Amino acid sequence: MTKKRKLGRGVAMVGAGMSPFGMFADRDSKDLVIEAFREMVNSVDKGFEPNDLDALYLGNFTNDFFVQQSHWGAILVDALGLVPKPATRTEGACASSALAFREAVFAIASGFYDIVLVGGFEQMSKQSTEQVAEGLALAASPHERQAGFTFPGVFGAIATAYFDRYGASREHLMNVTIKSHDNARFNPKAQHQRSIREIMASRVEKATSKGAAIPSWKDEKEFLADPKANPVVAWPMHLFDCSPISDGAACLLLVGEEIATSFTDTPIYVRGLGQASGRSLHAAEDLTSLEATRSAADEAYQMADLSPGDIQFAEVHDCFSIAEILSIEDLGFFAPGTGFKAVEEGLTRLDGPKPINTSGGLKCKGHPVGATGAAQLIEVWQQLRVTADRRQIPAGDLRFGAAQSMGGTGGTCTFTILERR
Amino acid sequence: MTKKRKLGRGVAMVGAGMSPFGMFADRDSKDLVIEAFREMVNSVDKGFEPNDLDALYLGNFTNDFFVQQSHWGAILVDALGLVPKPATRTEGACASSALAFREAVFAIASGFYDIVLVGGFEQMSKQSTEQVAEGLALAASPHERQAGFTFPGVFGAIATAYFDRYGASREHLMNVTIKSHDNARFNPKAQHQRSIREIMASRVEKATSKGAAIPSWKDEKEFLADPKANPVVAWPMHLFDCSPISDGAACLLLVGEEIATSFTDTPIYVRGLGQASGRSLHAAEDLTSLEATRSAADEAYQMADLSPGDIQFAEVHDCFSIAEILSIEDLGFFAPGTGFKAVEEGLTRLDGPKPINTSGGLKCKGHPVGATGAAQLIEVWQQLRVTADRRQIPAGDLRFGAAQSMGGTGGTCTFTILERR
Repeated sequence: MTKKRKLGRGVAMVGAGMSPFGMFADRDSKDLVIEAFREMVNSVDKGFEPNDLDALYLGNFTNDFFVQQSHWGAILVDALGLVPKPATRTEGACASSALAFREAVFAIASGFYDIVLVGGFEQMSKQSTEQVAEGLALAASPHERQAGFTFPGVFGAIATAYFDRYGASREHLMNVTIKSHDNARFNPKAQHQRSIREIMASRVEKATSKGAAIPSWKDEKEFLADPKANPVVAWPMHLFDCSPISDGAACLLLVGEEIATSFTDTPIYVRGLGQASGRSLHAAEDLTSLEATRSAADEAYQMADLSPGDIQFAEVHDCFSIAEILSIEDLGFFAPGTGFKAVEEGLTRLDGPKPINTSGGLKCKGHPVGATGAAQLIEVWQQLRVTADRRQIPAGDLRFGAAQSMGGTGGTCTFTILERR
Repeated sequence: MTKKRKLGRGVAMVGAGMSPFGMFADRDSKDLVIEAFREMVNSVDKGFEPNDLDALYLGNFTNDFFVQQSHWGAILVDALGLVPKPATRTEGACASSALAFREAVFAIASGFYDIVLVGGFEQMSKQSTEQVAEGLALAASPHERQAGFTFPGVFGAIATAYFDRYGASREHLMNVTIKSHDNARFNPKAQHQRSIREIMASRVEKATSKGAAIPSWKDEKEFLADPKANPVVAWPMHLFDCSPISDGAACLLLVGEEIATSFTDTPIYVRGLGQASGRSLHAAEDLTSLEATRSAADEAYQMADLSPGDIQFAEVHDCFSIAEILSIEDLGFFAPGTGFKAVEEGLTRLDGPKPINTSGGLKCKGHPVGATGAAQLIEVWQQLRVTADRRQIPAGDLRFGAAQSMGGTGGTCTFTILERR
């Protein structure tokens, strides 16, 4: 049913940079984008002159609301010293910079531009937690908001439905969290770089130094089951099931395929693209699967002439632990109702056959919403180029990696397959 | 210096619809978009099945701020019954849906999509005037805002500089206003459909019926010079120099050139595209010209192999009367410092050699900011198809029309040339 899509001109990714993700009281959107931009410029193996850029596509969710300033395209072009180059902002909630990536691909594939910057950024930590929750809720559907849902509640309801249908439990979600923390140990840009075991040890140390009662957990799961260590947010979503409030920016460079090797000997090519929209939960026939993810994946696989088994690793949109399980099923990596077992069996670990969220995912890398889509694609690019340092997956025959982004409760989903040739 | 741009595949506009523009207490963004969408569907000469759409591009400035709801792509796809079709929102302040148009063109020209909807919408009138001013100021640069400028103030400063440099006066701006009102008499979708003379007559009638002192103005300029009838907003910008607060939506349909005649025997083709960014006024070398307009125009003329003299009529971004004069100069229609004389001589009237803002412009058609870019292109489409009814310009050899959009104080500018073959 999905049409087979194609591009009239190939597009390759030849550079990328990121600010650290975290909470930075002293830095604003401009500072973060400039840092990511500089790293991107320096990442281009054979050098790159910013004045050669044709255009910028910038994903941001809602600086309108968070920072009371819109029209960031013009502001950032000026800040980067790139006036009068054109800049276009895209918004699709937490998929905003995944949309920027697509528009940059189309603009190059159309023949109009040759060299295009994709950026994403968000500045969240200067708000109170309540303001961030209110801001993020702007991405939910009016129906969800009217019913009183915030996102932890929505994904809590999804998790409950999933538990009920497939016999999974909170313990299975803990496996996602433990893996994310394990991976993020090796990501120097991540907001949370400690494994759960390291966090446990530091809490023991802290209690000891304060002369307080020393907690004793026999393993990570006992820690995560301790309501003091991991309080409930919206059952069964606990603190460690939720991605954090983050500031950050990501930039990457796309060029026409035929000029890619003048930037690097290792360009990474766009092999498949998919995007789809979904209804909010009030209209869902099934809470355990998101139609927009399935549709976007179908479209990308058809374009790429690939099947889920061909994708060797992926970044998926784990805004909450349960979302990672839904995604790896909806993307076809694991059959419906088996994702939680796959995680339990370690199949999605760094050393497993299908590594998922090698970056640490939104949970640990951080989730500055407008930057997330671009940052996911940067992780896939680094893995395919075998430049992911200590979190590098086995480099033997790496060829296809992918990233899935999601806005709202699957209101907007994208799936992008990258290829190393 | 501008590169010569091209598209790998031609793109044509084959349908369009608009809600009325105005202040509608009982209608929200969804209602307005649905109305524009229905009219667009019915406008397609040979019929069109909405399910054949591949994707939607939607321009909106800041429903985030105005309506406290983001992620409108997903909401509108659902409202239009088009799930799971993908939707991408673009934002570039008051140029937001001009950007949506460009992205739709690129997506089709890339070969990825064939049939794409472009929409624009904004919902402003439910706010207080102060809230609207605050919301619109989000599009200004941080420097402009820090200095205490709102947009009437910014354009007031521009007008003052123009007066000083070229010897123009408030009276010359009045000519723009009078023309806009004259044109809007013939636009059934316009927010203000009365000529200045009709407004004067109605004020006389009102005073008479109330037994109040009957005002006597000898002509339109005396009316516009009367501070009671036309109070100052930010000198020299008076009420009738400013576009109104508006609600509205606009939709149009783009398709690949080679399938265009299966939709209509009169497709209108995309001939030239330009987009550029500009610095805010604190960094401008010259307040009487906007570099982003000049750059965008250069790019579009080069792509189209046309010069300003070839463009037979245009819609330009007259958020304020002075902006229309700057635009017709920056687009090359009239030499710097001569735009105000051209307007005075009637050259830009409906029956003049270079009709400008035949729709009534933002001033009279209305300016629901996110809808404006698309609405301008719809006016050009209607004129080229000779379906503009009583405001139709002479149809003899109509071939090229254009639209210029602007976000902020020239922070983002686009220029689009359409062609009838």
